[in-house]
Amino acid sequence: MAQNDDNLLKKITSHAKEYGFIFPSSEIYDGLAAAYDYGQNGVELKNNIKEYWWKAMVQMNENIVGIDASIFMHPSTWKASGHVDAFNDPMIDNKDSKKRYRADVLIEDVIKKYEAKIEKEVAKAQRRFGDSFDKEQFLATNPNVKRSQDKIDEIETRLGSSLAKGDLADVKALIEELGIADPVSGSKNWTDVRQFNLMFSTELGSVAEGANKIYLRPETAQGIFVNYLNVQKTGRMKLPFGIAQIGKAFRNEIIARQFIFRMREFEQMEMQFFVKPGEEMTWYESWKAKRIAWHKALGLGEDNYRFHDHINLAHYANAATDVEFNFPMGFKELEGVHSRTDFDLKAHEELSGKKLQFFDHEENKSYVPYVIETSIGLDRMFLAVMSSAYTEETLEDGSERTVMKIPAALAPYKVAVLPLVKKDGLPEKAREILSDLRFDFNCQYDEKDAIGKRYRRQDAIGTPFCVTVDYDTLEDNTVTIRDRDDLSQIRVSIDELKAKLKESCSLEGLLRKL
Amino acid sequence: MAQNDDNLLKKITSHAKEYGFIFPSSEIYDGLAAAYDYGQNGVELKNNIKEYWWKAMVQMNENIVGIDASIFMHPSTWKASGHVDAFNDPMIDNKDSKKRYRADVLIEDVIKKYEAKIEKEVAKAQRRFGDSFDKEQFLATNPNVKRSQDKIDEIETRLGSSLAKGDLADVKALIEELGIADPVSGSKNWTDVRQFNLMFSTELGSVAEGANKIYLRPETAQGIFVNYLNVQKTGRMKLPFGIAQIGKAFRNEIIARQFIFRMREFEQMEMQFFVKPGEEMTWYESWKAKRIAWHKALGLGEDNYRFHDHINLAHYANAATDVEFNFPMGFKELEGVHSRTDFDLKAHEELSGKKLQFFDHEENKSYVPYVIETSIGLDRMFLAVMSSAYTEETLEDGSERTVMKIPAALAPYKVAVLPLVKKDGLPEKAREILSDLRFDFNCQYDEKDAIGKRYRRQDAIGTPFCVTVDYDTLEDNTVTIRDRDDLSQIRVSIDELKAKLKESCSLEGLLRKL
Repeated sequence: MAQNDDNLLKKITSHAKEYGFIFPSSEIYDGLAAAYDYGQNGVELKNNIKEYWWKAMVQMNENIVGIDASIFMHPSTWKASGHVDAFNDPMIDNKDSKKRYRADVLIEDVIKKYEAKIEKEVAKAQRRFGDSFDKEQFLATNPNVKRSQDKIDEIETRLGSSLAKGDLADVKALIEELGIADPVSGSKNWTDVRQFNLMFSTELGSVAEGANKIYLRPETAQGIFVNYLNVQKTGRMKLPFGIAQIGKAFRNEIIARQFIFRMREFEQMEMQFFVKPGEEMTWYESWKAKRIAWHKALGLGEDNYRFHDHINLAHYANAATDVEFNFPMGFKELEGVHSRTDFDLKAHEELSGKKLQFFDHEENKSYVPYVIETSIGLDRMFLAVMSSAYTEETLEDGSERTVMKIPAALAPYKVAVLPLVKKDGLPEKAREILSDLRFDFNCQYDEKDAIGKRYRRQDAIGTPFCVTVDYDTLEDNTVTIRDRDDLSQIRVSIDELKAKLKESCSLEGLLRKL
Repeated sequence: MAQNDDNLLKKITSHAKEYGFIFPSSEIYDGLAAAYDYGQNGVELKNNIKEYWWKAMVQMNENIVGIDASIFMHPSTWKASGHVDAFNDPMIDNKDSKKRYRADVLIEDVIKKYEAKIEKEVAKAQRRFGDSFDKEQFLATNPNVKRSQDKIDEIETRLGSSLAKGDLADVKALIEELGIADPVSGSKNWTDVRQFNLMFSTELGSVAEGANKIYLRPETAQGIFVNYLNVQKTGRMKLPFGIAQIGKAFRNEIIARQFIFRMREFEQMEMQFFVKPGEEMTWYESWKAKRIAWHKALGLGEDNYRFHDHINLAHYANAATDVEFNFPMGFKELEGVHSRTDFDLKAHEELSGKKLQFFDHEENKSYVPYVIETSIGLDRMFLAVMSSAYTEETLEDGSERTVMKIPAALAPYKVAVLPLVKKDGLPEKAREILSDLRFDFNCQYDEKDAIGKRYRRQDAIGTPFCVTVDYDTLEDNTVTIRDRDDLSQIRVSIDELKAKLKESCSLEGLLRKL
């Protein structure tokens, strides 16, 4: 399971490509930075994750419905949401190398150097004092540590205050005072620091006097907010109720990396739950519990999750937490649960002049609902499944296998039907079985190579069951089912096959755990 | 069923909004031109159409797999495909009104005026001569008709030849010679005619010396072509085999209209089938047959489809046909089946320098496969279902109803569970039934208003079955199932309910018809 190293991420990236889960985008043109395509197995896994989320959110909840808003939205949407004015990163260019950097990241890298210095001092002292080493006392008293710590505090305070004031000239001054050089060229020949909006823009050209600038949505949430009233009215929804959506979002990240963890084009699964003001904290806690249960039902490992509550809240939130997952790079955000107050609906009310309220019959008054949001990165969820599934094993006979222990309900293929040999009517019998299973499951057929080799191929793409058709099958209508994870083999009648597979592979099983 | 008029399209548009199928995008900001959002019922119908297509193409075919390529692709992709150089419309601006028009459409409007003149002459003569009127002879001999026809021929020839030569100055000259005025302002003060590329572009900003211009893909097909080799190798695919994909595409259409029929952001369901050169015509015919069978299995009306073979083939095709559907606007393209030869793969080979071939073991040689494409507009398919489903009926008791006769397997909700009254334990019993059905079907619960009113609401969103829970239910565990289309009611045991619904509503039933 998840090992905590870079090496594992490399292995998964390479396995994902070799076995048709994820290819670098436009690879024949040497790829497009930080863009990836889902391959033949990846798309099935991704679709299954979507379906699990959608059914758990929409089909299982009487008071949650879905929508699918377009990526293109009226530009005022992003004015109201604050993205036009405040969705920025402070950037600086090096005039010699022509490279662009996030100014705050350059400065944070200096802080990291001081932190490394402190760690080095600690390690040195630890080696010297052994068991009697008191780390806390050492940190508090060692003069070298103190110098570094003072420097860190000074830089952090200065950076924090200039960013808070929007004083980009001072950020530039700080870079110069710290003597920061371009990591690539070593040059200190910097431009000014400028704000760089993370939204992609394009032009809707239909009028001569200049096209309309529009944005690719940087989040799906606003598509829900602008449709709040349409859904509430036409769906006759009463508070509390939710609107769920799965869709693409786009952010012009300067540093997009770590495989599919941070991409410029990504997919979100978001649900906005509208509640009566004052009741938001109850629902916030309730959604935290429901979402973690959704994750844990998959069996990726209870210890691989933790909540990370936000200390510094976004301007729209009065409570927020991340569901962090133990990725190969360590614990990182997989999902967010946010109490967004009435910030968004009110902002849209103000800019559009339309009332976005709910008439509460009990209270006999209208008000703008509060909102609890659950927002999960589909690509990150995919990576969570892939990284916890990736397993290298040595079998009893000493041979090695790489097996993707993907939860059966999410696996790209549920079953592979394999004739033991490619003759004597076994392929025909296998295809006959297949032709019926196909209506219920995504199936593979494979008749090439020895059976062991075929098992390995199915292991590598995470097929939970292999059904082997042998000579006995022709006699007694039974087949062998081989289990991907424990390698056990059982003999079952063909008539029982479908029920057996359904029991183990269906989404229904997952949903019933919730 | 489908009436052939504008009025029907208006009714459907308004019904779609009123019942949560489709909302104008960003409506609180007065909408974004030609962009729409799928509402709570629309998203379910859309997802069901996707699932029907995906299962029919991928799950049911051993030699077809899926992918999901990103919208952002390397810009060279669009150079190779010809979109950068040739995906243009000739546009002209009026300097006074500041309106922009397609130059060829302005000219075609003149042709239409002459055609209308001819029709007027015919109608006049028809009235005069009555039964003895010989239309063919009249067209051949009447001098007024001849003058108009000559003018039409002259304009068509001139326009065709200047467009073919790319002589935009001559297109402008023709506009001036014909004395074409801006339909809005009447002004003849035109700019030059210019080519206007239909791709949306944006900038991927990560380097200082100027961001990289990239495009939003104008079609999903190229995402398949650039991944051809990755899928073929990692999926161990042999010819013939197909790659299927569902995804968004974007075109900066100047004239986007007719509800969701032509949008700037739309969704395609495409499959590229790779075959041995020389075998493409067999596969072209085979895919024509398979695709029309897929459509007809839905029961939207056999007469609502026709093939329209292309006479003027695109530069990449050696055969092409449209599956046309009888939309409210008349027969229009719903899907295309195209024999694309090896044009795309060869173009990518040339530009990328990578071999995109298949090694044929039987022939012992490598070659670039030929391609048959099936390409269907998901939004158009949605409109086809909506427009054939929309029905206004007068019932036996003289009351009127609007019912969406959506194929049961595609309906947003499969069943509504309705307690006859809101007391005496009937709601509790209804919810108990619901809590089990929910795992298999998207269900509605409704206890408000008289039962007849509740039926009407379910009719309007196309729910094929209503299950009524009454006092007898508490005694004998039976419920009434009411059929949306024929209004029949049958009494069944709750134990049989699930099987009964599965029989009528499952995608499996549709797939077994193929």
